[in-house]
Parts: sequence; structure tokens; C-alpha cells
Amino acid sequence: MKKRIVTLTTDFGTVDGYVAAMKGVILSLSPGTDVVDLGHDLPPHDVRHAAFFVRSSYPYFPEGAVHVAVVDPGVGSERRGLVQPWRGGFLVGPDNGVFSLLPGAGRGAREIDLGRLGSPVSTTFHGRDVFAKVAARLAGGASPESVGPPLRSPVRIELGEPSRAGRGIRVPVAAIDRFGNVILPLRPNDFPFERGQVKVAAGKKRKTLPIVRTYSDLPPKGEGILVGSHGYWELAAAEGSFARRWKLKAGALLQVE
Amino acid sequence: MKKRIVTLTTDFGTVDGYVAAMKGVILSLSPGTDVVDLGHDLPPHDVRHAAFFVRSSYPYFPEGAVHVAVVDPGVGSERRGLVQPWRGGFLVGPDNGVFSLLPGAGRGAREIDLGRLGSPVSTTFHGRDVFAKVAARLAGGASPESVGPPLRSPVRIELGEPSRAGRGIRVPVAAIDRFGNVILPLRPNDFPFERGQVKVAAGKKRKTLPIVRTYSDLPPKGEGILVGSHGYWELAAAEGSFARRWKLKAGALLQVE
Amino acid sequence: MKKRIVTLTTDFGTVDGYVAAMKGVILSLSPGTDVVDLGHDLPPHDVRHAAFFVRSSYPYFPEGAVHVAVVDPGVGSERRGLVQPWRGGFLVGPDNGVFSLLPGAGRGAREIDLGRLGSPVSTTFHGRDVFAKVAARLAGGASPESVGPPLRSPVRIELGEPSRAGRGIRVPVAAIDRFGNVILPLRPNDFPFERGQVKVAAGKKRKTLPIVRTYSDLPPKGEGILVGSHGYWELAAAEGSFARRWKLKAGALLQVE
Repeated sequence: MKKRIVTLTTDFGTVDGYVAAMKGVILSLSPGTDVVDLGHDLPPHDVRHAAFFVRSSYPYFPEGAVHVAVVDPGVGSERRGLVQPWRGGFLVGPDNGVFSLLPGAGRGAREIDLGRLGSPVSTTFHGRDVFAKVAARLAGGASPESVGPPLRSPVRIELGEPSRAGRGIRVPVAAIDRFGNVILPLRPNDFPFERGQVKVAAGKKRKTLPIVRTYSDLPPKGEGILVGSHGYWELAAAEGSFARRWKLKAGALLQVE
Repeated sequence: MKKRIVTLTTDFGTVDGYVAAMKGVILSLSPGTDVVDLGHDLPPHDVRHAAFFVRSSYPYFPEGAVHVAVVDPGVGSERRGLVQPWRGGFLVGPDNGVFSLLPGAGRGAREIDLGRLGSPVSTTFHGRDVFAKVAARLAGGASPESVGPPLRSPVRIELGEPSRAGRGIRVPVAAIDRFGNVILPLRPNDFPFERGQVKVAAGKKRKTLPIVRTYSDLPPKGEGILVGSHGYWELAAAEGSFARRWKLKAGALLQVE
Repeated sequence: MKKRIVTLTTDFGTVDGYVAAMKGVILSLSPGTDVVDLGHDLPPHDVRHAAFFVRSSYPYFPEGAVHVAVVDPGVGSERRGLVQPWRGGFLVGPDNGVFSLLPGAGRGAREIDLGRLGSPVSTTFHGRDVFAKVAARLAGGASPESVGPPLRSPVRIELGEPSRAGRGIRVPVAAIDRFGNVILPLRPNDFPFERGQVKVAAGKKRKTLPIVRTYSDLPPKGEGILVGSHGYWELAAAEGSFARRWKLKAGALLQVE
């Protein structure tokens, strides 16, 4: 028999017992489940980063997995809880756009009806009282219909669209990873950059960067642009953090030519 | 057949191979065990924080789990090792109070007799050489009696008792979580705070805070008090850390009215 | 049936989805595998630290496990990928010395032939596109021969050899752990230090330190030397970090008498 997989992605850290309590709930309601930690150190309350994380990892999982992502600044407010059938399994989390960068996002989404959970729900910790519980039930064979009614217009976030500006394009930083690599929402198919180098400007800083194939090809202590493992153009620095050198944060605007 | 669960909670971090070695020992002695990480980034040597972590998470796990917690500033000293039957499974760790906030703490506890382990025990890493080993044996069906003799007067720690002071109560901070929320050892049943607001003082700082239902109801950039997911009153700040703003640490005394 | 174990050790952190993607690949190609996190917060690009981590933990695992370690500053360059049969299982990772401190390191190693992977390989993320994939295949029963040809002269790193110097020995710091303990590449059998104390000098600092049995025996706020759980002499400070107090990094040279 195939083991059921439930993945967990949160911004709770593991200094406190929050993630631990979620695991306890899942293993209690759905014994034998394989609970897989994806990451718990996501930047707190940063739904955009979480959405990029989700997009970079969920597609690699086998069909049938139940994916729980809880980066949830709106817990206890009017924001809705979401369940969506996805690749033979389910997405479970707040309806704040955390799943909206996935292919097929929003299709068949349902709203979690807290009244059907059959136990008191805290106002501050839906990770434990709502999402872990719903995920365990779905892993155990419950239908998405049993969770609640269809969810109209699920929230979407965007990585940011490039726009024409002068002779180049204006583009927001999509994400920054732990190594300080700066990921741009530009796919090489749409933006082939065939001249061997690219002009990049941010604020008053302006530089011409070589296009390289991999981090090892960056000029010593220098910078460059390459196609990263996410499938996007990515700015990188040798022996350092591009983001820190250029003082960039997610959402910052760059000019690229 | 039900899979055996062994949970791990430590302050070892995962920069070094300490936790990894514990997992290796468990999986070697008890193949097929589901080793579940609860947290390894607990504040080093902070038994009080660990006890609160344990209390916030273990009760959510299914019966029969073996829980190992190693926050152990006294390793190698005279402090004893503890095994306690608990909810059909076991608690395993140093006898320093780390389990003492759980319901039923201390009942039936036994002292780990190092002489019965049948292999050399390092003086610095009982997590690997004692606790992981004992946990694996218990998960494999060993009896708690085989581990060692009854343990007299297991060590207890307290979250701190509130005391009457003037027109209010004096109360120590029970714990601070990663978001800077300040948890007080006050249950809403005992301290209903029905007037809609609460006066809080710490050192020279003094403020009247609204009682709110959830983090989203905090005044913008402001502070408030709410019933947290642990079931205790909790001081929280919108878009920031209450603990940092008020310069509070676990154990700090507050005056509440 | 015995569950297959695949362990993961990386410097990717878990802020981003890199480790998550690796897990997805393994669980997709080898369903039912028990993926065990050893550590993902290893110091970035520090192959020496990773090698020490590997040496401190792998030997505790059951035979047959597949161990993947990806601390890989040379990704995308000419550095080769390595597979080595080890204790009934396999080592999988870059050929940069990360496995070279293990007993039997290098024996029967093979080079991963990227051409045999049957899918495009990114130039920046071999953890996902090469090592996770190869590990899953080996866990699923593939032969090491199918991975690629024999690998000649696998890269070795050394913890550093002590050398005679004056009346004592000159020795590099092998590793520093999260608590600031400083591990020396000196085994008690070779260096018995029987006089009860040891003279240590680094730069202009010079001190005579007591030999103690365990951390609890260190003089209050003082320092000492003991045999650590790795089986090496280790410098430790009570209530603090020896490394920080002495301003030591891995590789720094000490004089010991």
C-alpha cells in the first residue's frame, strides 16, 4: 500500500512547539502518514516568498501528496481557509495566494467551513486546529466536498510583471534565496538575452553583467546573470550575496537591458 | 501494524552531526521506526523553555509515542536519566524537569541505569549514548523496569505562580515565542479579565492594553492581550515583537491589573 | 520488508525550496523511502565542516542506508559527482572530499555520468537534478555500475595533522560546533595528556587548562579540555563559547603541550 504523504511548509520556526503540535494532530488523526518537512524557517508573514517556495518544490512531489502551507498573517481574521484538489492530492492552507503560483491554481478550490471541524478552533493557531486537521482527514480519504462549499475567487498574488521601460524592461525582484541570489520573473524563452551580457540598474547603481552558465563561471568576486534552477534569470555574486551588495529586497524594481 | 513513533526535541541545532547521530542510533536499534523531529533549535540549556515546548506539543500526539527531549546542561554530572510511561508510550530524557509541566508528570518514573546499557557511555553526549538508545529499546518493546529502578522525587520546574500584589497580580513571563509573543502563566478561567482591557506594567513601563480575540484585531502597530493557542493569556504586538519592545525575557516579572 | 533509508545533509538551509525539491524527487522516484534529514544548516560551502559532520553521524546508521551530502561550492564546474558503495548502502554527492573522513573512503567509487540521467540537468542545482535522482535509483535497487565508470583518485581532505613544535605539538582546529566547542584532530590514544592539565596557546593567548571528564566539571566560567563525543580532544568553556573567547576558526593553529 502506498504511504500517504503530507508535506508541511510554515513560517513558525522550530524554536517553539507549533510545528510539533501540527505533526501530533496529523499523526493522531491519520496514523502511518509520512509527514515531510519542507521548511519552517520561511520569512515570517511573507506570503510572496512562501508562494515562490511552493512553486519551486511542490511540482517535484509524487501525485497524491497532501501539501499544507501555513504562512498566515491573517489568521483569525475574515480570510478564508482553502482546500484544492491538485495532482491527485490536495493543497491545504489559508486563502491568501500562497498556492497561486502553481499551475492550475484555484481550480476546484473549496472553502473550509470551520463549523464542520467538530472541535473548538483557536483564533490564533489555525495551523494546528484547522489545516493540520483537514489535511489529516483528506489524507485519510475524506472528500474535498465534505470540507466546505466552493470558494469563489481565490486570492492570487503575482511574482510581478516586467514592463517596457526605455530601451529595456523594468522588473521587480521575485525572490531572494539564502545565498543572496536574486531571482527575476523572467523566463529565458521570453527574454533570451543573447548578446552575452546584460545591463542591470537599481537605484543609482548600474552595471554590465556577463551571462554565465553556472556559479563557478562568475568572475572572481564579481557578479553575473544566469538561468537558475527555478527556470528564471537570476543575478548572482561570486563569494557573496548579490542582494546584500546591491541592497535589494523582494519586490525591489530593477531596470534590465 | 502500527508504526512506532519516536519524537526528538533538542537544543543541539543541526549545524553539527549530534541529532543525526541520535537518529542513526534509533534507526539501527529499532528499524522501521518513524523518527519525528519536533525541534532542534530550542534555546541552548533553557530547560524552562523546553518544558513549555514539551507541554505545548506532546499532548497532540497519538498514544504510544516515545518522546525524547534532550536539553541537558547537566550532562555527565550527577543528574539522573529518566524514563516515564506516559499515555501508552514513554518519556525519555534527563531528570531536570523538562517533562514536569505535562499532566501526570513523574508518575511511575524510573532512573536509567547506565550500567545496563551494555556499551560505553560518553560523558558529554547522553543524547546519543543513553537517551536515543533507551528510546529505541522501549520502541522495540523493552519494559521500563528493564531500564532501571524507580526514580524518587523527579525534578520539577514551575512556569511561575502569580501572586497578589496591590490591586493586581504579579506574574512572571512563562515563555516567549519566535514572534515575540509573551506568554503568561494565567489561564482565562482563573483570570477572566472581563473589563475589555488590562493594565500591564514592567519596570517603569506601564500601559493599558485592549483584550483582543486574535492577532488581526490588534490596533495597527499597537499592542494587546489575547488568549493564545497554548490556552494562556498572551501579550502580543502588531507588526513586531512584544518582548523586544518591552525588553522582556522569560522569568521577567510583570504587574497585571 | 525493510524500509529504504535515504539521509540528506546540505548547506541549503530551509528558507528556500531547494531541500524540499530534493525530497520530492526522491519520493517520486522511490516511493515509500524514509527520507531522513540530518542537517541543512551546515556552514555554506564549508566542505571541511561537512566532512566532519558526515564522519560524526554516518557510522551510527544502519547498514544499507543511502547517504546524500550536498555541500557543493563547485556545482556546474568540472568537479565530478561521486557514488560509493559503503556499508551495504551508498554515499552520493560531489567528489570534493565530503566523504573522505569516513573509514573506507574512496573504495569502489564511481563517477556519475550525467548523460545517463535521462533528463536535463540544471547547471546550478545538482542536489535536485543529479544527487537526489541517483540516490533514489540506488535506493530502488539500481547498481552502482549503472551510474557511471570508476572514479580515479577521489578528492581527499584532511582534518589536519599535528606536527612537533618545540616541546609540544602544533595542531589545526578540526571543527567548531554550535556550542563553541573546539575539536582538535587528536585522539586520546595517541595523545594521552596524562598530567592532568594541558598548556594551550593561540596567537598571543596562552593558558594552562585542566583536563576534565565532562562539561559539568569545567571550572565556573572557566575553560578546560576533555574527550568529546567525537572521540577527539575538545576545548570547552563553561557558560560560553571557547571559540568566541579565543577567537578561533576551523583551521586556526594551536600550540598544545
